[in-house]
Amino acid sequence: MLRILGVIGDKWSILVVGTLRDRTLRFGELHRAVTGISQRMLTLTLRQLERDGLLTRTVHASVPPRVEYTLTELGSTLLTAATALGDWAAAHRNEIENNRRHYDEAHPPRARR
Amino acid sequence: MLRILGVIGDKWSILVVGTLRDRTLRFGELHRAVTGISQRMLTLTLRQLERDGLLTRTVHASVPPRVEYTLTELGSTLLTAATALGDWAAAHRNEIENNRRHYDEAHPPRARR
Repeated sequence: MLRILGVIGDKWSILVVGTLRDRTLRFGELHRAVTGISQRMLTLTLRQLERDGLLTRTVHASVPPRVEYTLTELGSTLLTAATALGDWAAAHRNEIENNRRHYDEAHPPRARR
Repeated sequence: MLRILGVIGDKWSILVVGTLRDRTLRFGELHRAVTGISQRMLTLTLRQLERDGLLTRTVHASVPPRVEYTLTELGSTLLTAATALGDWAAAHRNEIENNRRHYDEAHPPRARR
């Protein structure tokens, strides 16, 4: 179970899978669409998702080669399951940010063990 | 959205929250229940979950002090949302492990760019 949670319990994986919902994208398009991800992290994330069978990587024989990423059937089912969690995150975003602010006020760095 | 996904998109957080479902536990009990987590990672995970308001940390004035962790209402709602994802992971575990095996056979380390 741990190793499977490792797949899906990673924000970049979730964001990349979400970005590929209903569309095929090239590497550069994904890089622009997933705000904040580095090229290296995107490469690693895509390779892991391909290895897990959540997306397919298709190389078209052009010059330069065109490489496209598409969700598999399995990837689409993950997206459905992840929706509840995404909805939760959106609904509780402000509450969590308030909690963090209160915690930081009550636990200044110097007083922490 | 990214920072919130950072909270929940972490396998240790999900496992700790799941372990606290319907019960209060002490640090040592959590450490035994969450297989594979180091003391340091458990400490960091608990602090982050407390900061987010997903659990409360109660220190009882005994010798030695007894420290207990309990999910908050917010933590319980996260658990509900995460259930779909946990069910997905359990249902597709074998499929993903097969995919990984096939990928590794088709992409031996030396042939990889």
